[in-house]
Amino acid sequence: MIKIAGDVPPKKKLIIALDAMGGDNAPDEIIKGADLLLEDPSYDVYFKIYGNKDKVVPLLNKFPRLINKSELIHASQVVAPEEKPSSAIRNCKDSSMQLAINAVKDNQADALLSAGNTGALMAMSTITLRTLPQIHRPAIITAMPSVNKKIVMLDLGANVECDANNLYQFAIMGEAFARIVLNKKQPAVALLNIGSEELKGKDSVKLAHSMLKETDLPINFYGYIEGHELSNGKVDVVVTDGFTGNVVLKTIQGYAKVYKYLAKQAFTGSWLAKIQFLFAKSAFKRIASNLDSRKYNGAMFIGLNGIVVKSHGSSDKVAVCNALKVTYELAAAEINKQIADEMVLTNDLELA
Amino acid sequence: MIKIAGDVPPKKKLIIALDAMGGDNAPDEIIKGADLLLEDPSYDVYFKIYGNKDKVVPLLNKFPRLINKSELIHASQVVAPEEKPSSAIRNCKDSSMQLAINAVKDNQADALLSAGNTGALMAMSTITLRTLPQIHRPAIITAMPSVNKKIVMLDLGANVECDANNLYQFAIMGEAFARIVLNKKQPAVALLNIGSEELKGKDSVKLAHSMLKETDLPINFYGYIEGHELSNGKVDVVVTDGFTGNVVLKTIQGYAKVYKYLAKQAFTGSWLAKIQFLFAKSAFKRIASNLDSRKYNGAMFIGLNGIVVKSHGSSDKVAVCNALKVTYELAAAEINKQIADEMVLTNDLELA
Repeated sequence: MIKIAGDVPPKKKLIIALDAMGGDNAPDEIIKGADLLLEDPSYDVYFKIYGNKDKVVPLLNKFPRLINKSELIHASQVVAPEEKPSSAIRNCKDSSMQLAINAVKDNQADALLSAGNTGALMAMSTITLRTLPQIHRPAIITAMPSVNKKIVMLDLGANVECDANNLYQFAIMGEAFARIVLNKKQPAVALLNIGSEELKGKDSVKLAHSMLKETDLPINFYGYIEGHELSNGKVDVVVTDGFTGNVVLKTIQGYAKVYKYLAKQAFTGSWLAKIQFLFAKSAFKRIASNLDSRKYNGAMFIGLNGIVVKSHGSSDKVAVCNALKVTYELAAAEINKQIADEMVLTNDLELA
Repeated sequence: MIKIAGDVPPKKKLIIALDAMGGDNAPDEIIKGADLLLEDPSYDVYFKIYGNKDKVVPLLNKFPRLINKSELIHASQVVAPEEKPSSAIRNCKDSSMQLAINAVKDNQADALLSAGNTGALMAMSTITLRTLPQIHRPAIITAMPSVNKKIVMLDLGANVECDANNLYQFAIMGEAFARIVLNKKQPAVALLNIGSEELKGKDSVKLAHSMLKETDLPINFYGYIEGHELSNGKVDVVVTDGFTGNVVLKTIQGYAKVYKYLAKQAFTGSWLAKIQFLFAKSAFKRIASNLDSRKYNGAMFIGLNGIVVKSHGSSDKVAVCNALKVTYELAAAEINKQIADEMVLTNDLELA
């Protein structure tokens, strides 16, 4: 078969720094997730695994395939889930998390994945890596389910208050993320707002709207969307402040449980209901598979001068493996170079 | 049977001002909904119906039961769905909406219901009725589904930005609404926030938290909740700013459609799936009934010096009837007197 250069970029050998100690199921499921990625030969990856050698070596011994594609760097500390960000920065300098971040800073790794303490990871990464040129604040971005596809949303909690410049920069960064992770050439970017009347909405959102409408960057800007349009599949990138984004993402996760509960109730009320359930079981598995949060695992701290990806704290090996795929794709596509190039073009447009 | 006085307050004869012309299905479904309420003898109600007599009289003639319990007041104008609030105030003085509001102001009616233009209804009501003493801003509140019960949330869009005093007042008003509409003696009140770490969250939310913790009012204050806890049934009243509340409510409504879509997909893929659907059909009807938005219809503009309830624009007669029940209960319990009494007690505590 003739390969056309540039059509599908060849996958490169990439080095991922892996925090083996973060998350509820660390180090077991982290190591298993890394080994699982190696099942897919299209990911040409080498792991620098950061963790306590007494805990990780016995585990690694069970995965010869992973041993061949990794090295273990001993870390004497672990950032606890309840550690405050400011304290983690001061007191956890030899933690698996900090050492993995250092590897990205020192170009020893192309990206890092951690399932540890989110606040500490954000604080340590920001202090160590700093933001990309022209980017004021990093944001948290991830993929989430919509009616017939994945969408991405940012910010999911890094910034409680956002001004128009923040939102404008989030739009540029979110578009780059969607191109890579959703594999879309021209993802549609929208600003989350309330109402469509001219008087409605936040001033910061309205100003960001005019900035995005007037920018010369080739962004496919959709305009405003409201909450009920998040799920209708019309847009690919949803831009909002970190307070709203965090609440919305968690609300969706919570209500998924309501539907599960109602479905269970509906099928357990009577003998007839129980028989119905036996018949419908496999259909329910198909629904659950579509909503499986492990499929959407892997949130990037976008805007930092280095690729930092957060895996959900409760990740199992499947979730870790999916987050590693996201990490790999972002590094392979050099997302930060893409963002930096666009920021240079947009510099003159910024409204102060 | 011995009736114990005060145990269950007797239902009073109440007058509801009904905007017959607002909403996508007006006046037909509005009139049908009013008649439907009369099926339940526990609602002792008299309607002042505001609308165009050429349209409403022929309809009313079909409902002799309603004719006996109502009067029609001709209104020459209708507020259009796309009318801007400022223009509605100036140019729609003889609209069914404005006349119904006037009836509440002039004590000709105990409360009003409209399915018309939300922005115009809020603007006209606020200008005509003003806010209750000590209440700075009205908010929009409604009941919504949670895992095993109803909860209420405010503000759902009246105030894009809220300070701590607004949130504190919303908590007091929301508690009164929940006592009446959820029929709870000590509803648990929570502030919507992100994260539980001390540094996280909005300043306004943090300040409202200390005000609610220190208040002498007998409020069952739960503290903060996050997005995923909205649905777990631990609290009854969720307090947030109008931007977040509006986005969250609409997101939940939108994702309900995602689950419907996924369920449909799961049961239409194959012959087996289609047979499964035939078996599971009645169970699905039970799920749909639990999520039926008509059950949650009736949003109050709380904080105004008069009871104004908004029915969803797309309301059918069942939805209108449910909103009328909410309107009746709020008027019967004299919600505004309850709020005003609490505001007198809380006055000294206010942080400016």
